[in-house]
Amino acid sequence: MKKIKIGVIGAGRIGKVHVAALAQSVPAAEVLMIADTDIKSARQLAEKYGIAKWTTDYEKVIQNPEVEAIIICSPTDTHAKYIIEAAQAGKHIFCEKPIDLSIPVIQSALEAVKKAGVKFMVGFNRRFDPNFQKVKQMVVEGKIGETHLLKITSRDPAPPPAEYSAVSGGMFLDMTIHDFDMARYIVGSEVVEVYTKAAVLVDPEIGKAGDVDTAIITLTFANGALGVIDNSRKAVYGYDQRLEVFGTKGMVNVDNNFPENHKYYSSHGISGSLPLNFFMDRYTQSYANEIIAFCDSLNKKVDSIVSGDDGLKSVAIAMAAKKSYLEKRPVKLDEIYK
Amino acid sequence: MKKIKIGVIGAGRIGKVHVAALAQSVPAAEVLMIADTDIKSARQLAEKYGIAKWTTDYEKVIQNPEVEAIIICSPTDTHAKYIIEAAQAGKHIFCEKPIDLSIPVIQSALEAVKKAGVKFMVGFNRRFDPNFQKVKQMVVEGKIGETHLLKITSRDPAPPPAEYSAVSGGMFLDMTIHDFDMARYIVGSEVVEVYTKAAVLVDPEIGKAGDVDTAIITLTFANGALGVIDNSRKAVYGYDQRLEVFGTKGMVNVDNNFPENHKYYSSHGISGSLPLNFFMDRYTQSYANEIIAFCDSLNKKVDSIVSGDDGLKSVAIAMAAKKSYLEKRPVKLDEIYK
Amino acid sequence: MKKIKIGVIGAGRIGKVHVAALAQSVPAAEVLMIADTDIKSARQLAEKYGIAKWTTDYEKVIQNPEVEAIIICSPTDTHAKYIIEAAQAGKHIFCEKPIDLSIPVIQSALEAVKKAGVKFMVGFNRRFDPNFQKVKQMVVEGKIGETHLLKITSRDPAPPPAEYSAVSGGMFLDMTIHDFDMARYIVGSEVVEVYTKAAVLVDPEIGKAGDVDTAIITLTFANGALGVIDNSRKAVYGYDQRLEVFGTKGMVNVDNNFPENHKYYSSHGISGSLPLNFFMDRYTQSYANEIIAFCDSLNKKVDSIVSGDDGLKSVAIAMAAKKSYLEKRPVKLDEIYK
Amino acid sequence: MKKIKIGVIGAGRIGKVHVAALAQSVPAAEVLMIADTDIKSARQLAEKYGIAKWTTDYEKVIQNPEVEAIIICSPTDTHAKYIIEAAQAGKHIFCEKPIDLSIPVIQSALEAVKKAGVKFMVGFNRRFDPNFQKVKQMVVEGKIGETHLLKITSRDPAPPPAEYSAVSGGMFLDMTIHDFDMARYIVGSEVVEVYTKAAVLVDPEIGKAGDVDTAIITLTFANGALGVIDNSRKAVYGYDQRLEVFGTKGMVNVDNNFPENHKYYSSHGISGSLPLNFFMDRYTQSYANEIIAFCDSLNKKVDSIVSGDDGLKSVAIAMAAKKSYLEKRPVKLDEIYK
Repeated sequence: MKKIKIGVIGAGRIGKVHVAALAQSVPAAEVLMIADTDIKSARQLAEKYGIAKWTTDYEKVIQNPEVEAIIICSPTDTHAKYIIEAAQAGKHIFCEKPIDLSIPVIQSALEAVKKAGVKFMVGFNRRFDPNFQKVKQMVVEGKIGETHLLKITSRDPAPPPAEYSAVSGGMFLDMTIHDFDMARYIVGSEVVEVYTKAAVLVDPEIGKAGDVDTAIITLTFANGALGVIDNSRKAVYGYDQRLEVFGTKGMVNVDNNFPENHKYYSSHGISGSLPLNFFMDRYTQSYANEIIAFCDSLNKKVDSIVSGDDGLKSVAIAMAAKKSYLEKRPVKLDEIYK
Repeated sequence: MKKIKIGVIGAGRIGKVHVAALAQSVPAAEVLMIADTDIKSARQLAEKYGIAKWTTDYEKVIQNPEVEAIIICSPTDTHAKYIIEAAQAGKHIFCEKPIDLSIPVIQSALEAVKKAGVKFMVGFNRRFDPNFQKVKQMVVEGKIGETHLLKITSRDPAPPPAEYSAVSGGMFLDMTIHDFDMARYIVGSEVVEVYTKAAVLVDPEIGKAGDVDTAIITLTFANGALGVIDNSRKAVYGYDQRLEVFGTKGMVNVDNNFPENHKYYSSHGISGSLPLNFFMDRYTQSYANEIIAFCDSLNKKVDSIVSGDDGLKSVAIAMAAKKSYLEKRPVKLDEIYK
Repeated sequence: MKKIKIGVIGAGRIGKVHVAALAQSVPAAEVLMIADTDIKSARQLAEKYGIAKWTTDYEKVIQNPEVEAIIICSPTDTHAKYIIEAAQAGKHIFCEKPIDLSIPVIQSALEAVKKAGVKFMVGFNRRFDPNFQKVKQMVVEGKIGETHLLKITSRDPAPPPAEYSAVSGGMFLDMTIHDFDMARYIVGSEVVEVYTKAAVLVDPEIGKAGDVDTAIITLTFANGALGVIDNSRKAVYGYDQRLEVFGTKGMVNVDNNFPENHKYYSSHGISGSLPLNFFMDRYTQSYANEIIAFCDSLNKKVDSIVSGDDGLKSVAIAMAAKKSYLEKRPVKLDEIYK
Repeated sequence: MKKIKIGVIGAGRIGKVHVAALAQSVPAAEVLMIADTDIKSARQLAEKYGIAKWTTDYEKVIQNPEVEAIIICSPTDTHAKYIIEAAQAGKHIFCEKPIDLSIPVIQSALEAVKKAGVKFMVGFNRRFDPNFQKVKQMVVEGKIGETHLLKITSRDPAPPPAEYSAVSGGMFLDMTIHDFDMARYIVGSEVVEVYTKAAVLVDPEIGKAGDVDTAIITLTFANGALGVIDNSRKAVYGYDQRLEVFGTKGMVNVDNNFPENHKYYSSHGISGSLPLNFFMDRYTQSYANEIIAFCDSLNKKVDSIVSGDDGLKSVAIAMAAKKSYLEKRPVKLDEIYK
């Protein structure tokens, strides 16, 4: 079996997730090289998984003639640059979300991808979660009928550091972006309007940094369906990721995942364990499935499952959500870009 | 034990519910007389429960010197008139929701009640449902901490007849009004702003009658909490009534009620029964508890639990919801009345 | 509507349950008279439900020419005597379980019933519980296929007083007897062999009184199915009543009932309320349904649903269970009676 | 990091499971060599995971001086021979269950292990399942108080081929042996008596082969607790593995695992997916945890978690269960061996 040769840029939290998934679950791929501005991070990750080369210079990865595909896990503001260079070098590309915080920048990166004719996939890993995939499958099979309502609950166990809020573009672009992608994916129709009601209820520091931590976001889809996302940056009981779809033929919902399913009956009540708390535990399977899907798309010469356009649209919805919050009114997507 | 003597106006669907609850669950009360414009309805209900008198003339009930309290179950447009007359006759009053579809009319009715010094309670029976009461209790006990998010799912099994839509004031004033009251009750803070996104997805006839059948309604509370209600007039799987509260210390939610709790494992999957489908089955206990609470408030000379002001405010929120829908913008409650 | 005229013997705990159910849920019946050796109990119960007559003399009930049916809720050792006298007086009979603790005595009582041609029903109320009825229905409909395994969990919240243990015939005849009847009812086949492993684990006083408090009882049915009942006299989390049937086409199980269905997520875990703890709360609906079924059997001149033979067989199985425990071996039912 | 060098004997179904787990989840170990009497199986497995050597000669694995530990996944009748040879060669040993079908043979194998002073672990993987580990932890922490009742449900999706029944020693020694080990593990006390009621209800061919396919097995523990296991060889809804412990302070139970947790509400009812059906899917995590635990015991020079004595005792209980079935009476463990 010929293995796909992969180069990874970024050995931080998400880089580690992808390298581990590649090592454990994708015999069809092999990581040749890892780049990180912090050489220690790059080396440790390389050594842990028996990867031969590491570097602080991302260009060495992109220009490595053996490397067929690049996985970009570096900070958001470097994504577009690396995409363009990798595309020009003829490499296939997997890029973490969001592609960028600017629509024109995303567009130019995608233009480079198109021009080079390389494969491109955005890292919306949740599409590959078995729960959400089951819901998608049921929608596609017509079990729900015409979709009328979509509900997504997405709450983090704790807010990121205040400094991260600034870099990340804020809650809508960093956290809710996953939900925007999920909404489009599940409903199978474009979001045409967004209304956001948001607040700073968790931590005033978040507000001082110009961000929010709690929100209810109403979506209108092109097919007429309505959707709502509720977000919080701090659920004391842990990571809360649920979804429900309601339509003319029925309703389906999915709950969180749990470390085990015990139920304990004492004189005080019935109790059980909290959901898996850390996103890497919750989405272990989805990260593995995602990378498998990316490698499959390369091997089978088919289109990747999460396109550059998907990456663009989720950013646009996030911008509409922010604009709606700031201007206290529903915002149409064509106010963001056409 | 001295029994409270009660007169009932309206022997329709909800009148029957209250008379049955009084007969079966309230030994402390006795229905003396029933009025309905349809004499047959009045007589049948009276005979079924051994009630001595029935009439087509509501005034005979209100003016009956033995009667201490009036239960008003007649059409909405008669409520205010009967309230005023009953108050002037010195009778305590239980009135079905909504009090009226006009804020000034409600205000004048409540003025008459206040002047007469009689007890007054509005029929928001869901406050007395064991599930919602448990949630309320946990909020009050501080188990949730400060409330950040409230979510209510409220879906009917099937839309009412088109002609009813017109009379009832539309979905917000007829159906969602229960959810508006529940929102205020659970959060314990006033709604200050409403944004409604609604659509006609179930039946175009509903749209032709000027009403909607599907909605996502965002609420902002005075204490900073955010809320969302999702409504549909037609859930093919039955009556769907769920609620969730999320705050700084945790989250609580309640599910629907079921006729029994079997789980069947066959080669095709695991299955169970649908929720109780009819509102009278779902809320049997809450209707009984509600009438018990009303009679208790009379006996114990304490204030009733659902006040005239509660009745007024739920109507005002419904009006704001409708205005928001029509004007496609968030509407503050003080635009409706001050 | 002509009402069935009923006389009640025994105004204790279970007598109250039946009188309340008759008053609240059976408009087709009317209690004329209550007897109890304690006149105060008889009077209080009569007054509470507006029953005209009460007495300490059970014969006055049985001989009352207006009375059509007798409900026997007196201590077990009086059942057979009252059954015989009531049958001879031509009254229909509802008798609490167990009919008696002696097979020949039961047989002679049933003989009297047969000779008189009156209706007779034994008070196995759990057959009328919506959960267990759903399971029975699914078995009858063939959803389970051929039954292979039956599992019953039946645990009390707390043991009865030691003195009651002696009178009641012990755990098998007092508590497990319900499970023996349920086993026959659900499987629809006779128990032919019993093996009991039992112990005194809850309270040594129970052992001193010659009884047990914990047991695992294996049943063999005539149709080849196997069954197991697990009992404890003390579940600190409350009354635990569950059942599972497994066969060639699938499996069905039913859980306990709960006062409400909240789920609370805090930083400590997820928790919910304990099951309904008191048998009268857990089985409120089944007691009502049972009395309705008895009255229906009188009105419609059909056989009652729980026959004298059902009452006899459950006692015989309980005796086999006890014999198995004492002799430490499986016991065939035909060792008990033929 | 120095890696433990491992040799594997047996490249069949379970051999593949262990090799895959070692490759994916145990960076601290390395498989050097695989033996199987079918060279094709050995080679395919070796190639799939990049293992350098394969052979048909198990002795080459045992005698390989680089190999530190042997994993025995060959047929049961070869286990003892390989254990003895591996022990004599100074290799640590992991052996699949059952060690052997003869108590004296097991004893002599364990004697060899003891004499050689090597580590030894038996493959009761279910002890490492997160659900059962949670239950064990709660028992150890005292959450259950004194254990009174243990209930294990263990049902296979389909019976093994008839020819396998003969070789495997029958249901008790092949399938229920896992439950016997689990019973000892969870209760933390030895089984002193067994009573088996079993039948051939699934397939008469199984009966012709001298085996059973359905059973209810009552266990008595040295600490006074009672236990019950129910088994079927064919659950049409899939692999069914549940457990419950009941004691003086409460009760805990664990359910099956599911591929995802969707709930679908249609007009026909509520439905969800069946449990994970295949033992390798159901116990993927436990197999990985098991091998990690074995390697940990080697690295940390601590005792292994599932001892040779555990392997011996589970076989003895299985023999008692069979004897009880054949002799239709409770059998004490000291009738089997002392």
